[in-house]
Amino acid sequence: MPPDTRDRIIAAAMDLFLRKGYGSTSISDVLQTAGINSGSLYRFFPSKQDVLLAVLGAYQDGIRELLLEPAWKNVADPVERIFALLACYRNAVVQTDCAYGCPIGILAMELHEPDPPVRKKLAGNFDAWVEAIVECLEAAGSRVPPGVDKRALAEFTLTTMEGGVMLARTWRNVVHFDRAVAQLRAYFDLILKPARTKRKHT
Amino acid sequence: MPPDTRDRIIAAAMDLFLRKGYGSTSISDVLQTAGINSGSLYRFFPSKQDVLLAVLGAYQDGIRELLLEPAWKNVADPVERIFALLACYRNAVVQTDCAYGCPIGILAMELHEPDPPVRKKLAGNFDAWVEAIVECLEAAGSRVPPGVDKRALAEFTLTTMEGGVMLARTWRNVVHFDRAVAQLRAYFDLILKPARTKRKHT
Repeated sequence: MPPDTRDRIIAAAMDLFLRKGYGSTSISDVLQTAGINSGSLYRFFPSKQDVLLAVLGAYQDGIRELLLEPAWKNVADPVERIFALLACYRNAVVQTDCAYGCPIGILAMELHEPDPPVRKKLAGNFDAWVEAIVECLEAAGSRVPPGVDKRALAEFTLTTMEGGVMLARTWRNVVHFDRAVAQLRAYFDLILKPARTKRKHT
Repeated sequence: MPPDTRDRIIAAAMDLFLRKGYGSTSISDVLQTAGINSGSLYRFFPSKQDVLLAVLGAYQDGIRELLLEPAWKNVADPVERIFALLACYRNAVVQTDCAYGCPIGILAMELHEPDPPVRKKLAGNFDAWVEAIVECLEAAGSRVPPGVDKRALAEFTLTTMEGGVMLARTWRNVVHFDRAVAQLRAYFDLILKPARTKRKHT
């Protein structure tokens, strides 16, 4: 068995869950897409939920390398990094003709059973995302006034992204994502002090 | 056939789609919950998608009577009406031990096929919700400065509700919904002029 079988299963499942949804994806869909037999799959994953947990683990493990680093490559300003991350989601919306849904957000909404281990992994992904925003706000130093609750502002950034993606997906129009981000930007502009290089009134 | 058969089908499907999801609900689940036979159902709804369209139509038709009027019953201030509506969602989150999901938001995320008539009905529901917020902002008169884009602010209220519900559902903790609404409230306080009765500096 090639050493990458487990990774191929995860990649296939990741793709299928995103395109079809978790509920509509069967184990045989995963086998077919990954090009492996059922024995190889069950060796790694006794159940479909185990595949899901591995997919969610892969998203969380990959957040820095696959999401944050590309988003922040050419962006030094910590506050602009927050909006550069949101711009990645905008690109995904545009590139999919507005069919895009955040894979974590879709699963959070699609799954109706309590599934505590799954919820924990979904929450772990949201936590990693929110902490990345908190990190940016901390790097912004004194531009963030002491009264600002960085964690709450970071979660508000996540609700804006998730809500904006949901609206664009529903109306099939990126303008609804853009409007949400513009409102968030206006809020940031009101509560944060401007960057030194952009300051107009000193 | 009793005149309410169609309504019973819609009520049963509404309940099932919310609890189990659209994909996981079969026509026989609907028949069993509604207590009717398949002939009665197919007479009204040739396909499961027709049931979904009727459910979405019922949500949209009922928004004023079932959602807005109860939320606004004892709230005269138009801006407070916006937050009273959000408080209804908070109640739903708390009453379901944070398992609540907005039925429109769940369907918007769960459905992966383009399904243009379904998307149109989902968007119609979002439009009705957003227009109710716009109505509040218009009723607030001069408290809303001329530069404020009411439609954009109303959509931002929707992204906050949807995102807040999603986060509370994922972490199974209403604090995440509360944080999102508190940030929205802070934004409203920054951009709107205070109500006359609450004004501190005149």
